[in-house]
Amino acid sequence: MTTVVISSYFEDEHIQRIQSVDERLNVLYREDLVPPPRWEADHIGPADWRRTPEQEDEFLKMLAEAEVLYDFPRGHIRDLLSIAPKLRWIQGSMAGAGEVAGKAGLLETGVTVTTASGVYSGPLAEFALMAMLQHAKRLGRLREEKAAKLWRQGISGTLETKTLCVVGLGNIGRAVAVRARPFGMRVVGVKRTVRDTDEAWNYADELYETADLNAALGAADYVVLTLPGTPETRRLLDANALASVKPGAYFVNIGRGAVVDEAALVEALRSGWILGAALDVFEEEPLPKESPLWALENVIISPHSTDVVPETINTLQTDLFCDNLRRYLAGEPLVNELDKKLLY
Amino acid sequence: MTTVVISSYFEDEHIQRIQSVDERLNVLYREDLVPPPRWEADHIGPADWRRTPEQEDEFLKMLAEAEVLYDFPRGHIRDLLSIAPKLRWIQGSMAGAGEVAGKAGLLETGVTVTTASGVYSGPLAEFALMAMLQHAKRLGRLREEKAAKLWRQGISGTLETKTLCVVGLGNIGRAVAVRARPFGMRVVGVKRTVRDTDEAWNYADELYETADLNAALGAADYVVLTLPGTPETRRLLDANALASVKPGAYFVNIGRGAVVDEAALVEALRSGWILGAALDVFEEEPLPKESPLWALENVIISPHSTDVVPETINTLQTDLFCDNLRRYLAGEPLVNELDKKLLY
Repeated sequence: MTTVVISSYFEDEHIQRIQSVDERLNVLYREDLVPPPRWEADHIGPADWRRTPEQEDEFLKMLAEAEVLYDFPRGHIRDLLSIAPKLRWIQGSMAGAGEVAGKAGLLETGVTVTTASGVYSGPLAEFALMAMLQHAKRLGRLREEKAAKLWRQGISGTLETKTLCVVGLGNIGRAVAVRARPFGMRVVGVKRTVRDTDEAWNYADELYETADLNAALGAADYVVLTLPGTPETRRLLDANALASVKPGAYFVNIGRGAVVDEAALVEALRSGWILGAALDVFEEEPLPKESPLWALENVIISPHSTDVVPETINTLQTDLFCDNLRRYLAGEPLVNELDKKLLY
Repeated sequence: MTTVVISSYFEDEHIQRIQSVDERLNVLYREDLVPPPRWEADHIGPADWRRTPEQEDEFLKMLAEAEVLYDFPRGHIRDLLSIAPKLRWIQGSMAGAGEVAGKAGLLETGVTVTTASGVYSGPLAEFALMAMLQHAKRLGRLREEKAAKLWRQGISGTLETKTLCVVGLGNIGRAVAVRARPFGMRVVGVKRTVRDTDEAWNYADELYETADLNAALGAADYVVLTLPGTPETRRLLDANALASVKPGAYFVNIGRGAVVDEAALVEALRSGWILGAALDVFEEEPLPKESPLWALENVIISPHSTDVVPETINTLQTDLFCDNLRRYLAGEPLVNELDKKLLY
């Protein structure tokens, strides 16, 4: 038997699907031992939730048996390896698990880490396209003129013929490109390395390596960042890179806040070098009250949750985990395995 | 020689392209005799603009020579046939020319009427997608919470797996479908007649005939109207049809205002039966100050100009006219010919 411990909240329907994958699975799940969801499909739970000492004992007993973990267990990241000594594979519920896997000390072990990369791509891409379209179609002006009951015809904008620079062409970047191209946009992709046979060519008209980021930025009317948070991507969009952006461009970040020098971005937004921005991620989260971003007219702020779409993500999560369970039992390679060097 | 009179404003660059189509063309254009553009790519001009009596004489002399007219001449719709007796073909700058062709008395004549159908489809489809996305991704809530500097995570929405009903599958409807499908939407199309071999099947998962409109509406999370204004489409979306819409749906009109019973729409928006609407067209335009639409929170109002996108439409217009000029001289069928019975 393979013991699978489900260590964050999932609805009954999903637990049952997991149990029915194979008779050789021993699936352990105790709803009372994991944080209750703050909303449908939440896997984190309220900040002030704690297990009672009795619950904690029982939770630790479960973890001690786990060969497979479905999600990083709240409250037991740094001591994960010692309390789950039998662990061979952990499937996270988040798209980017490099950081948490590092904290759990898994990068130097043989424990396989898989992520939920792809599950959130659609909802994140929608946020990017929403932001780009409301900018192009001047929704802000329409709103103001409506408030004044003002019928004023004039010029509108379009995404057609415009250039979109997608920084990062993983699942999220590809989801953005696939949705943007039917609007008649030219897509320029930026990725770590570019080969002639790169699959990413199916998603972009041009590809640049990260070393040539500034050249790619200079051609773009819209910039969408989809990069994970790694030492390599940290502050990749610094003041220098932001100064390379074509003046008048629009900026979207649906990757990680640490990729951008936020103070430099604020400066570029204030000066009008960058005309507007839509941000789902920030250097510090929750975004501090004193952040100047709150007051900038040309900024859309989303509290790192535009990908929380229960109607689709729960099903996609479980599809992915069940598929990986079958692969695991069959000794096949898993989907979405974390690269422990690249951290995504 | 074929005398072509250009009777609304076009920039030099476009006039020159038209002149260079063929040596057998005698192109007449006097910038001072047509209304000046209110903005780039405008063909209507200021409401209070008038020709002087001398200008009027010269304009009439030009029209008297016209075998081909590029655009309906401001101030001379109802008397068009008498002042342009040599007229054989008129190319309008608008996508829907049924109404104006009727006023000009062209429907019972042999004069060919062609429209600019297709030129505005992209910008109109963008407005529809923008509206749908800002609804799904709860932009209104993000804006309110930003104003309060409130970081509140929670559930967002998605277009994925949702059903979009596109009423009218001409150029505009198809442009909407092409952009919506990569978001994972199921597209249900409504058109006058449906055949097995219908090209529209390339754009929709299901097709309904207009007679079955209510069934199509009942399945839709989003409804986008793209219909032209004709006697047949007048108030097609009446109180009865609006009551057939799935409760909680979102509504977009980028066709003609006369297609909707606006009072019934207001009622549906007030009751919450329809959750929100984005309107580029209205029963009466400009939308009267006393319209209740102005005050409805869940409504986006665009003053019938979201398709005014000079950077693309001017070029597309001239591409189309030059192509049609070549066809005309070669005796070939023209593109975008108005069906004088269907009026589109």
